[in-house]
Amino acid sequence: MALIVQKYGGSSVADVEAMKRVARRVADTHDAGHQVVVVVSAMGDTTDDLLDTAAQLTAKAPEREMDILLSAGERISMALLAMAVNELGVQAQAYTGAQAGIRTDSHHGRAQIVGMVPERVARAVKEGQVAIVAGFQGVSEDDDVTTLGRGGSDTTAVALAAALGADVCEIYTDVDGLFSADPRIVPKAHRLRTLTQEETLELAAHGAKILHLRAVEFARRYGVPLHVRSSFSEKNGTWISDSPANPELEGLVPSAALVDPKDLTMEKPLISGIAHDRSQDKITVTNLPNNPGVAARVFSICAQVGANIDMIVQNVPVSDPTLANISFTLPEGDAQRTLEALEAARDEIGFDELRYNPNIGKLSLVGAGMRTNPGVSAKLFAALSEAGINIDLISTSEIRISVVTRLDDLDRAVKAVHSAFGLDATETEAVVYGGTGR
Amino acid sequence: MALIVQKYGGSSVADVEAMKRVARRVADTHDAGHQVVVVVSAMGDTTDDLLDTAAQLTAKAPEREMDILLSAGERISMALLAMAVNELGVQAQAYTGAQAGIRTDSHHGRAQIVGMVPERVARAVKEGQVAIVAGFQGVSEDDDVTTLGRGGSDTTAVALAAALGADVCEIYTDVDGLFSADPRIVPKAHRLRTLTQEETLELAAHGAKILHLRAVEFARRYGVPLHVRSSFSEKNGTWISDSPANPELEGLVPSAALVDPKDLTMEKPLISGIAHDRSQDKITVTNLPNNPGVAARVFSICAQVGANIDMIVQNVPVSDPTLANISFTLPEGDAQRTLEALEAARDEIGFDELRYNPNIGKLSLVGAGMRTNPGVSAKLFAALSEAGINIDLISTSEIRISVVTRLDDLDRAVKAVHSAFGLDATETEAVVYGGTGR
Repeated sequence: MALIVQKYGGSSVADVEAMKRVARRVADTHDAGHQVVVVVSAMGDTTDDLLDTAAQLTAKAPEREMDILLSAGERISMALLAMAVNELGVQAQAYTGAQAGIRTDSHHGRAQIVGMVPERVARAVKEGQVAIVAGFQGVSEDDDVTTLGRGGSDTTAVALAAALGADVCEIYTDVDGLFSADPRIVPKAHRLRTLTQEETLELAAHGAKILHLRAVEFARRYGVPLHVRSSFSEKNGTWISDSPANPELEGLVPSAALVDPKDLTMEKPLISGIAHDRSQDKITVTNLPNNPGVAARVFSICAQVGANIDMIVQNVPVSDPTLANISFTLPEGDAQRTLEALEAARDEIGFDELRYNPNIGKLSLVGAGMRTNPGVSAKLFAALSEAGINIDLISTSEIRISVVTRLDDLDRAVKAVHSAFGLDATETEAVVYGGTGR
Repeated sequence: MALIVQKYGGSSVADVEAMKRVARRVADTHDAGHQVVVVVSAMGDTTDDLLDTAAQLTAKAPEREMDILLSAGERISMALLAMAVNELGVQAQAYTGAQAGIRTDSHHGRAQIVGMVPERVARAVKEGQVAIVAGFQGVSEDDDVTTLGRGGSDTTAVALAAALGADVCEIYTDVDGLFSADPRIVPKAHRLRTLTQEETLELAAHGAKILHLRAVEFARRYGVPLHVRSSFSEKNGTWISDSPANPELEGLVPSAALVDPKDLTMEKPLISGIAHDRSQDKITVTNLPNNPGVAARVFSICAQVGANIDMIVQNVPVSDPTLANISFTLPEGDAQRTLEALEAARDEIGFDELRYNPNIGKLSLVGAGMRTNPGVSAKLFAALSEAGINIDLISTSEIRISVVTRLDDLDRAVKAVHSAFGLDATETEAVVYGGTGR
């Protein structure tokens, strides 16, 4: 018997038929002898519909009331799913975020979890019931409902799994798992059977959309094994764990898909996957005085307006070594207010020009094996050069290399790199996964 | 300055435009210097839509989860209304039933209020904010959301008005108030400007649909003045109070509409209005042994199946004084299980036949003046007889006479009685309201 947390996104419960399918899967997992906690998002377009209605009433909705509004979507879906599971003869009870003990701070719309006290949920599963919990929401100290922001339901699921000591947190979605690249760009992309949490973190942080960064961070911090899989099939998805396989989970996923300790250390493929990101913009500040502290002044102003700076490059023009240029990337939503803030501080900082480029793309190559293999960047640059693609900024971590290209070149870049690192699927996944590149 | 509780039903907030209109009225009341607490129902068809979806998933939804589902409708409307009021520059905060301190027992779907602790609401209005409260819902001791059943939002409003010591509880609806009879049956029916709470109780209990019995009972018990009016016009509606007019309310309703103490005692019109009810059925148990306790046996069986018995008549056939017949009426929803229970107890009770008649209608004549005027029933029977309408059962209270007719005769009966008691509107309401019959 295992304790399993299952998270179903909005597309998995978009309508009555989908809801019944999910209920069937929940009941089957329960009937196989497991303890089941379900986290559910709002049905299909519910959240967007509520946002539309609010927008017709006001341009600046109070955040507290917006949270009340949006949290209603999960309450509807959790109640309906509980009914559907009960209909299959399995006792299920629905719990709001507050009832599931998900305590947050008071930052409406982007609340952080500050405590987990899932007593009612723990009691319910101990009594053999399925506990169905509203995703995306918690309760503040003031007893107000809060929402956790983007990816909130994933975070709810992982936090519950951590607090309950679950054996696995299954993230159900409408695709089969995480892929070596976005299959819409690279048709030969293959499903990844295993990933380390560190790799997943890098992929999520640099554009992979399936799992939210925050949930992965949570999973890593508390050692929660994740299994990302499709709610439309019985197939295994992607298993994400840094710890050796739990023998109790044998029945849940074929043992082949469980992470082998060896896998995590020596036999890891060089490259696991490629993430891409179209949502960043680039700002260049030119001809700054090249003295200590000038970069600090630029970025303290960015920080004041809450801009989330990603990659940074500083260079000195050959023509005049007393000057410097600083380029950086940031989410497109942050660009406008950052430009305005920098312009307002022009005299204080002292610069020549602000250049703004929204047409950039970022490609990130991620793999735990990179740590012990120094040839990766050379191979990456060669592949891009052969494809005639210019690289702008570059940044690296121990297990990731990211490059910025022209937006128009991004898809071609992803394809070329996927192929150069031997990630293209051939006959079967298994063959590919053993892969070249080591 | 007065403290005003306003309750808006689902038709008053059916869509974005209606919501804006309600927000305007709330803001205007606030800007006129009053403290405003708003109770709001779910938008338009929300509740029916949620029930439909649930019915597609299960035939026997768990009551606890049904309450979670249905309560989401009010959460959506209260959040949206708060946004719309804020948009008009008036600070408004939304509160769930739990946050408004509406504590109930655990009878999901038909919870009774057991305590009112509206601290947050009181604090909000003291600080000059508008408090917007979800109607129809409360919270149980187990910290679960409960719903108050039919008419729940009216009950929420009256309970809040009582707990907060409000000067008036305004019930907004899609008609102009309470009428001397249903205007769909009697086109000449006139709006009632004032009613006592006792009269309103009798009208609501015997078929008038505008106000729910439970809310009127609450208002009466705690002395809350009610004002039933339309959310689509500025006109005064029907003012319901047993206490003399509060001079502080002068600005709220024209003083002419306030209850004059004299009105309540001496100058009350003989008849205030006529209620009718098509939703009752009649059961007759024939040839029972005419001995003490036989009626008790019949009705204890009805009580066991929770049937809500209304009128009862027992008679003894001239042909055989050792036998008795008992006829009674009950809500149509209770008829089937009552018939089955009586049939099952046939040997125990000892009767000849169960006769079932679903085709009955009930007409109720209500007026506080009836107390001191003995000629009312004679006049009623004469009017019905002239119209060629047979009376079946009769029941009376101090201020009400009810008769059962054939269902087909009911509309004609209402019209004939309305006319016979001089209630038909002529030139102006005022003329009619002074009325004949005294």
